[in-house]
Amino acid sequence: MKSKARWIWYPGDMELYYAMKQNFSRVERGMGWPAFWKSEGFRNRIVLRHTYDLEEETSFTVRGNKDAVGHVVVGERKYPLGKEIHCPKGTVRISVHLGSIASFPAACILGDVISSDETWMAEDYAQDPVPAGCSSFFEDADQDPSVWPYSEKVFEPVRVERHMGGPLFVFEQEMTASLELEWKGWPRPCRVYIGETRAEALDTENCYCVCEPGPDGLCEKNAVHYVYVTNSTPEMLRIRARHQYVDLPVRVTFDSPDPKLRRIWEVAEHTFRLCSGIFFLDGVKRDRWIWGGDAYQSMFVNRYLFRDADIDRRTFRALFGNAPAVTHINTILDYSLLCVIGVKEHYEFYQDLPFLVEMFPKMQSVLALCESQEEEHGFVAGRNQDWEFIDWADFDRSGPLAAEQMLYAAAFQAMEQAASFLNRPSEAGMYRDRQEKLVEEINRNYWDEEKGAYVDSFLSGRRHVTRHANIFAIRYGLADPVRKERILKEVLLNSKIPAITTPYFRFFELEALCSMGCTDQVMETILSYWGGMLDLGADTFWEAYDPQKKPQEQYEMYGDPYGKSMCHAWAASPIYLLARYFNGKNNITVTIQTGQGEMI
Amino acid sequence: MKSKARWIWYPGDMELYYAMKQNFSRVERGMGWPAFWKSEGFRNRIVLRHTYDLEEETSFTVRGNKDAVGHVVVGERKYPLGKEIHCPKGTVRISVHLGSIASFPAACILGDVISSDETWMAEDYAQDPVPAGCSSFFEDADQDPSVWPYSEKVFEPVRVERHMGGPLFVFEQEMTASLELEWKGWPRPCRVYIGETRAEALDTENCYCVCEPGPDGLCEKNAVHYVYVTNSTPEMLRIRARHQYVDLPVRVTFDSPDPKLRRIWEVAEHTFRLCSGIFFLDGVKRDRWIWGGDAYQSMFVNRYLFRDADIDRRTFRALFGNAPAVTHINTILDYSLLCVIGVKEHYEFYQDLPFLVEMFPKMQSVLALCESQEEEHGFVAGRNQDWEFIDWADFDRSGPLAAEQMLYAAAFQAMEQAASFLNRPSEAGMYRDRQEKLVEEINRNYWDEEKGAYVDSFLSGRRHVTRHANIFAIRYGLADPVRKERILKEVLLNSKIPAITTPYFRFFELEALCSMGCTDQVMETILSYWGGMLDLGADTFWEAYDPQKKPQEQYEMYGDPYGKSMCHAWAASPIYLLARYFNGKNNITVTIQTGQGEMI
Repeated sequence: MKSKARWIWYPGDMELYYAMKQNFSRVERGMGWPAFWKSEGFRNRIVLRHTYDLEEETSFTVRGNKDAVGHVVVGERKYPLGKEIHCPKGTVRISVHLGSIASFPAACILGDVISSDETWMAEDYAQDPVPAGCSSFFEDADQDPSVWPYSEKVFEPVRVERHMGGPLFVFEQEMTASLELEWKGWPRPCRVYIGETRAEALDTENCYCVCEPGPDGLCEKNAVHYVYVTNSTPEMLRIRARHQYVDLPVRVTFDSPDPKLRRIWEVAEHTFRLCSGIFFLDGVKRDRWIWGGDAYQSMFVNRYLFRDADIDRRTFRALFGNAPAVTHINTILDYSLLCVIGVKEHYEFYQDLPFLVEMFPKMQSVLALCESQEEEHGFVAGRNQDWEFIDWADFDRSGPLAAEQMLYAAAFQAMEQAASFLNRPSEAGMYRDRQEKLVEEINRNYWDEEKGAYVDSFLSGRRHVTRHANIFAIRYGLADPVRKERILKEVLLNSKIPAITTPYFRFFELEALCSMGCTDQVMETILSYWGGMLDLGADTFWEAYDPQKKPQEQYEMYGDPYGKSMCHAWAASPIYLLARYFNGKNNITVTIQTGQGEMI
Repeated sequence: MKSKARWIWYPGDMELYYAMKQNFSRVERGMGWPAFWKSEGFRNRIVLRHTYDLEEETSFTVRGNKDAVGHVVVGERKYPLGKEIHCPKGTVRISVHLGSIASFPAACILGDVISSDETWMAEDYAQDPVPAGCSSFFEDADQDPSVWPYSEKVFEPVRVERHMGGPLFVFEQEMTASLELEWKGWPRPCRVYIGETRAEALDTENCYCVCEPGPDGLCEKNAVHYVYVTNSTPEMLRIRARHQYVDLPVRVTFDSPDPKLRRIWEVAEHTFRLCSGIFFLDGVKRDRWIWGGDAYQSMFVNRYLFRDADIDRRTFRALFGNAPAVTHINTILDYSLLCVIGVKEHYEFYQDLPFLVEMFPKMQSVLALCESQEEEHGFVAGRNQDWEFIDWADFDRSGPLAAEQMLYAAAFQAMEQAASFLNRPSEAGMYRDRQEKLVEEINRNYWDEEKGAYVDSFLSGRRHVTRHANIFAIRYGLADPVRKERILKEVLLNSKIPAITTPYFRFFELEALCSMGCTDQVMETILSYWGGMLDLGADTFWEAYDPQKKPQEQYEMYGDPYGKSMCHAWAASPIYLLARYFNGKNNITVTIQTGQGEMI
């Protein structure tokens, strides 16, 4: 019986390679915009090893990735890659030596008995041996591991509109697709304006995605929904969109008597599927980057849509990079902390022990970086090169920000729990002490008894209250029950406190409200906030939505008339909120199919 | 006037890219053998910045390396790569953003005023800005920085010998060359045996470099001198060798009335030129790797042959890799130490301050790794994964080895001096204290008054004496004058102490003898040891030479019948010894041409 050989590599290298491809894929008006943070490279020189006790003689062949040079050592003898190697019976130690520059070194080892899988060990000449990495997407020896096996589906436009300068082709839905222009007769020079919305495709002045196809008529992968082609007519031009995606089966169905709610689920699902590829991305037009905080939320949506632990793993590996951490994840202090918390929460949901073992040293390393940035109270403070994001909101940023300290305390708590899961009690105790001390300091410095709220800054004396730190205090169990109730009344349900304007922080706010039993308010918000986008014609959910703004102002962001991502992962949270908190309520039915085909 | 634009990159990245290519280039009997140490990758995401005060408007164009994506920011505006950018007069800050996976990111910026050179700064999103890297080999905007501009010279064989299985083509000299086979009529299937020596080319069983050319008749770069082609005749086959090399002009001439000495210089020069490319290599057949200790010696030879500071720099950058150091250079503790010493010595010779500034943090990082490996006396000891090489010799390896401690003390001394050159007195003082304390401990523990020598081990009680630690004690000024004299008598001039068997350690031994005034013994050794190789027909000098062995045993090493490198850089030291210590003696004349055409 031929065992199933998988491509194997140093764990994380595959993710670091594709993460670079992903983070370098953003294009704005013809300009490449590689992500502006420390890029983490894969290893270039590895060894993969395995010892077999062979009951009879056998043979095997080692394939390397196409850029690789190397050889195989069996016992004391060296053999080339790509040729059949015979092994006598007995105990035999096999080492596959690989060097590769342009892409990550990987091997596929084919034999009846000797065959590559996750039981092989990997070394990089710097650290102790670790289990090799592999993926269900690379199980064919004829694959090139540096080429991702995307699924493809070809779409034709569902409608063509005639405009002054040329035709506007309308596709059934937004997708990540390359375009193929096929001319009747000779190709004509033209410009192709590609939009998530009709407005941007028709705005030849300001359109974000513009392509000038060559004679081959190809436009590279973009966020495609509306396509406006100058210097042409519908008669002379046929256009196809080649949608490339990673096939992550949806394992949850949603039903509700409310058509608006059904549509919210549907649009959120479409939004989320487009933003879920090899990794969780922020958006499909922009940034196409892997952001830690965005991914943190996507992992909660994932539990109630794909229930796919692998995309979580790939995304975390891409985000954490290589230890030691010297910069914050995406340069953002809060994203570092959310990722540490996220790995622990991933473990709790999927019981994914080998992954926790793999990530624990990297979590420690990220937290050690934070610890190196503590001020005298033990609060973590950003350095010049760090970004304290939290949300697009007006904070009092004098000194350490309260919301960051909440996440810092939650991260210590996550480390305590992770250490306990790994049966490392002394480290668990150390993190517990750190957490308790920090929570004490937070309460002493940031809690404002009169306002019934945590204030942004304890330094300025301005006692400025935003929702954010208070929401985190509830979400991560850092406030006691009495304070939680006060926060609920004085902050969350207090319309004088400025409203959240991003779906990103809506997630945290609405979940906090759910946990406080305020599901009615949550349902109301889902229907008005996400429903509000639907009312404006959204068929994917947006990076930001301010109901106060006029419809024609909804495309603008960062000073760019079409800078806003109109299909943004962090806007898909109704899936999580509805599935987790509303199943069986309001006549809502959420059905989750497990991997074995059972319902739970 | 058009200013001269150079390709620029993050400093060190070019070297790390080509170092991987170099260290992955070894081929043994058709098998790739990438170097077995931590491979240091280049950065994948950088920014290059410059601020100009423009007296009038100007324009420029940014080219990126072919794998790069990115854009240019001028003031607040973004521009694509590859298109002309207009700048108004005034102060303007320019940032070139680049991401590149398969090779290192690099830019060439072309304009009358705005133009890329070493005054640009580079950032990698992890560290403070540093001056950009550049090289005189990449000064043409049409170049692809991932392709080294080798010089080439085509050689035809000078002789063809008929043998039973086919012709043996003999080239005038050994070289690094690819082969081109041109058949009269159709190509025939054949095997090509390539040797540094006639013996290995004709030994089809054991030959080290074997090639089976395809229909194109090409054999990739190898150490070529003798080429034996089966299944052919001299009439049906024409063969050419395409010698690829880095053109490093020789700036020293040697003259002596002794023809043997002239021949020693000539063969050493040829050996050394073959082993000097982008980097200093150990050998051309094997390993083709960049080894720290080998390179350390090559830098001394370089001073009296090419006097080229750039190849030193490229080699050090390749060896030190990226901070922080977590493994030793080439895994070898003594090579780490020699490289630290070497950078300081490079500075002393070339007065190369910017390079010392660049390397100082990496030297500190390597030394910090050593400090983390100290035992209770403050001696440095190898970990399991470290190799304490020193030399191919029998040492008493119980506990810390004396020779390593000598280098460790010399490294502290080098750091003290380097810190002084950089005007960092407190660090200089710290390293001086460390050095003084270590030398005291060395003298207390390793000096054997009765034997008049430092012993290998102070733990075993065996009082085993080898030449190595004693030679280092003289070379690095660690023994006082009285002890130096005793060492000279009891060790260096004592035939009961086993002789050195590698040209590598001959360098250190002979230089120590020169410094003790024993130039007659040194001349005698040069003539007998290197002359001994000549007597055996050497036209390049060897990795190892034991005069006791029979001629037919001289090819073997590491248990491989042709494992020995017959053209090895560390055998070229007569150049250094003769030029430095014998100019004007024994009727020897060494003439050094400076860069300005003057003689010194």
